[in-house]
Amino acid sequence: MWLAGSRRLSSNNCLRTVPTYSLQKPNLRLSTANFVPSKMPLEPKVIEVTPLDTDQAKWIGLKKIHYIDQDGKKRIWESAERRTRGASGIDAVAILAILRSKTNAFPLSTVVIEQYRPAVDKFVIELPAGLIDKNETAEQAAVRELEEETGYKAEKVTESSPIIFSDPGMSNANMKLVVASVPMNDQLEMPDSKLDVGEHIVKRVIALDKLNTTLKEYDEKGYVVDARLSHLATGYDIAQRIGKGAFD
Amino acid sequence: MWLAGSRRLSSNNCLRTVPTYSLQKPNLRLSTANFVPSKMPLEPKVIEVTPLDTDQAKWIGLKKIHYIDQDGKKRIWESAERRTRGASGIDAVAILAILRSKTNAFPLSTVVIEQYRPAVDKFVIELPAGLIDKNETAEQAAVRELEEETGYKAEKVTESSPIIFSDPGMSNANMKLVVASVPMNDQLEMPDSKLDVGEHIVKRVIALDKLNTTLKEYDEKGYVVDARLSHLATGYDIAQRIGKGAFD
Repeated sequence: MWLAGSRRLSSNNCLRTVPTYSLQKPNLRLSTANFVPSKMPLEPKVIEVTPLDTDQAKWIGLKKIHYIDQDGKKRIWESAERRTRGASGIDAVAILAILRSKTNAFPLSTVVIEQYRPAVDKFVIELPAGLIDKNETAEQAAVRELEEETGYKAEKVTESSPIIFSDPGMSNANMKLVVASVPMNDQLEMPDSKLDVGEHIVKRVIALDKLNTTLKEYDEKGYVVDARLSHLATGYDIAQRIGKGAFD
Repeated sequence: MWLAGSRRLSSNNCLRTVPTYSLQKPNLRLSTANFVPSKMPLEPKVIEVTPLDTDQAKWIGLKKIHYIDQDGKKRIWESAERRTRGASGIDAVAILAILRSKTNAFPLSTVVIEQYRPAVDKFVIELPAGLIDKNETAEQAAVRELEEETGYKAEKVTESSPIIFSDPGMSNANMKLVVASVPMNDQLEMPDSKLDVGEHIVKRVIALDKLNTTLKEYDEKGYVVDARLSHLATGYDIAQRIGKGAFD
């Protein structure tokens, strides 16, 4: 019953009480835990992969880009694209929530999500993220997605990145990264997420100081990590290590 | 002659002497600078975009993933993939070089590259990166690419990420991020890059403390920024701001 277990693990995962070895491996052999959900969760799995023609694809496409390089030479580049880009011109937003206690009852933390991604056939650890609705700014979308996927309500957006490109050697997919603070009066609150039916997203609160280490632990347990989140954690970690005299 | 100019800007861009307003806009109107290169560099530009069928594509492909979700429901996901993944199982490596002076003659810095990317039809700011050759580890590839693209020789790899996924909602493209230190005896050295013919990559050294701000300036000037690099800079920036009492 790992999903229930994992959800429980993540939802109650006060950073002070759950040591790192509590990370569960994302395999779905049913445990004998005496917990019976109303509907049996199953292990998601890929059953078949078939080629997809560009003219049959609904969400993404391939294109051939004919361009002239700096030497005046005609060249070709193959690229993928999302077909869902709306009026905002931005494919997606992600949000780094800074959870903080006004009484320092817990260390500055953030919230990440665990989610099965068919493209990699694994559970992937990512920042909360999503698409921008009509009549919504990127910042509003980020705050909304945070609340839907984790239950946390951001008080203030403290930073919003320019439009940035996820994998510009391969696609034109772009996004914005929004940073927002989520203050709590005292203890770490664990509000309910507001997931749609069929959405299986598990949240987990991680102290910023432990983010880089925790992502590595996830990897060791068979989860995989989003490259953007991993870069963020590495940047945070390097700054901290430099502050402590590394690279001196 | 902006390319020559930009290359000059970037190559001689000692962080102490070039203020931020020296960033040039990446448009290629020829200036009247009295500098005549042996071959006139041109502005790269897209001239045509055509649809590409999966069976005609050489470098990337589309696939339809049939999977069973946690509710036991059969679902379909569309995904893009690179077709170049070799025996390493890793599509690419990027490297965060930590440039440091043993006498503290310049602040801890890193080196980024400016490169035209047809997929976004812009000059993109990225970490040095590349593919893994046969008989090479990810770490060796990262160090090699750093030297080819920037001239800097890493002394020691200080960190190597797990395999991380660039845009797991859209593709299975993966990579590793390697951190390496590049010590210098005193002043900032500016070694020549070792680019192949037809490679147009410009390097730029940026103090780590200024990385996040500089990436925003790039954006304002019409360049765009790789999301992974932007996340790294945000992580670094947040750690520093927290160190100074932000979010207290």
